[in-house]
Amino acid sequence: MSGDKEKGYFTEAESAEVVMGSIAATTDERLHQIMDAVIHHLHAAVKEIEPTQEEWFQAIQFLTKTGQMSDEWRQEFILLSDILGVSMLVDAINNRKQGDATETTVLGPFHVENAPELENGADTSLDRKGEPLVVHGKVRSVEGAPIEGASLDVWQCNDDGFYDVQQRGIQPEFNLRGMFHSQKDGSYWFRAAKPRPYPIPDDGPVGQLLEKLGRHPNRPAHLHYIIGADGYEEITTHIFVPDDEYIDSDAVFGVKESLLADFVKVDDPDRAEKFNVANPFWEVEFDFVLVPTAG
Amino acid sequence: MSGDKEKGYFTEAESAEVVMGSIAATTDERLHQIMDAVIHHLHAAVKEIEPTQEEWFQAIQFLTKTGQMSDEWRQEFILLSDILGVSMLVDAINNRKQGDATETTVLGPFHVENAPELENGADTSLDRKGEPLVVHGKVRSVEGAPIEGASLDVWQCNDDGFYDVQQRGIQPEFNLRGMFHSQKDGSYWFRAAKPRPYPIPDDGPVGQLLEKLGRHPNRPAHLHYIIGADGYEEITTHIFVPDDEYIDSDAVFGVKESLLADFVKVDDPDRAEKFNVANPFWEVEFDFVLVPTAG
Repeated sequence: MSGDKEKGYFTEAESAEVVMGSIAATTDERLHQIMDAVIHHLHAAVKEIEPTQEEWFQAIQFLTKTGQMSDEWRQEFILLSDILGVSMLVDAINNRKQGDATETTVLGPFHVENAPELENGADTSLDRKGEPLVVHGKVRSVEGAPIEGASLDVWQCNDDGFYDVQQRGIQPEFNLRGMFHSQKDGSYWFRAAKPRPYPIPDDGPVGQLLEKLGRHPNRPAHLHYIIGADGYEEITTHIFVPDDEYIDSDAVFGVKESLLADFVKVDDPDRAEKFNVANPFWEVEFDFVLVPTAG
Repeated sequence: MSGDKEKGYFTEAESAEVVMGSIAATTDERLHQIMDAVIHHLHAAVKEIEPTQEEWFQAIQFLTKTGQMSDEWRQEFILLSDILGVSMLVDAINNRKQGDATETTVLGPFHVENAPELENGADTSLDRKGEPLVVHGKVRSVEGAPIEGASLDVWQCNDDGFYDVQQRGIQPEFNLRGMFHSQKDGSYWFRAAKPRPYPIPDDGPVGQLLEKLGRHPNRPAHLHYIIGADGYEEITTHIFVPDDEYIDSDAVFGVKESLLADFVKVDDPDRAEKFNVANPFWEVEFDFVLVPTAG
């Protein structure tokens, strides 16, 4: 065995070092750094697990099926990243909290580019299902100044628990989506439907894994936002319904304390008339706080 | 942020612990053990790498393509496991060397079940390409006793560097494959063609990764064996041509010092006639040593 080590042949003890030796000539420094972490942790995990050949092959088959489940409208590896907490970790690393800035959370797989531009007060609920919701608040900087003209790209599932892109031909196109802009005082407002909890797509290998792990596939009710403004860092975030039954067990670990919003049930015909919604309705006020771009 | 930790919400610092908390109810102890190693090493690797969102998405796309490249005849995730040294590590863990027993190495993706049963001395080379080779030796136990009736499932690439299953309709079916059995004194022999180095399939994401890593896709010339006998542990191994140009840089890390065989060029008409091969030819003698099954 000492002969193997001397010649650079594979040995169990030096397995990661042998593999890293093979890429010593890489000129891509970043790729070398990435592979160094991948190889060392991958080999360390295999050494801890000591998989049988059969277990190794099950892992190969799981990864293969996860790739094969993916297509233009379904990304099973993103779901896997989500349910293993990796998506949230990458989000956290790239968006460390600054001051009282609004915290970020996962993008999720259901964002679409080019949502329709809407005026403040517009109703995003085109299918009119569910309980009416009024959302309002302000966009401001961490210094407290209102931000005019910030873009708020908003999207959510409908009262059946599906996004429009999951039900093409069933829901109206762009149902519960819209691009709003904050007004002079930083304020925004729109009408929507109270979001509801829903399961992530669980008819593939990721759903099978969740079941084996004793986990449910549900996400607590939330609205999605991407908020940007000239001179400020763009943020991708949600606001959550705080008393949702899944609020403490989000399948993708997206919940943060600071993103729990105050959804208030309102029974007030005058206030309903002011917002042009049916009475009773739900109202949520939430301010978004942006960080100026560096430099 | 302390609020997030108290509620079990995701935090960057406690990311792996939060995910493990979600599977505390798993009744499958082995799966829990596997996930513990996977989650801790996966999160540790992400924290070391600190991927940008773009790098994370490149990784998602790479894994997706690796699954989608796989089909009935191509297993790109096994190739990935091979070139990252994982296949050899799993082999090493499951086949720790005992005494002077023959060491094992990777199975590779080109084994087929039900190779034809052949008599000792048969020629596996059906396409008659390349230089003739005579392979002989004995199968014995670690105690030194010859093993009669051991099965030797042998396969190799042809002189163009392809296995028959990679060239269906071009090579004869079962070209350079056969199932032999050792004789009363443990001896076996067969005729074949001298193997040559060849590249693993490199027209997919794994080939692209090798190129970015500055690595070639080649394997040094070898013959594959699966050897079994009643009362002995089955072994999967190769013998290698020791002066091959890739002997110190096998793309899948399969080479071990003890598996370098002595390929001798013979120019001796009498010996050629004895083995029923054209003169000159190559001769290799290699003994296989098996370990009794436990219990």
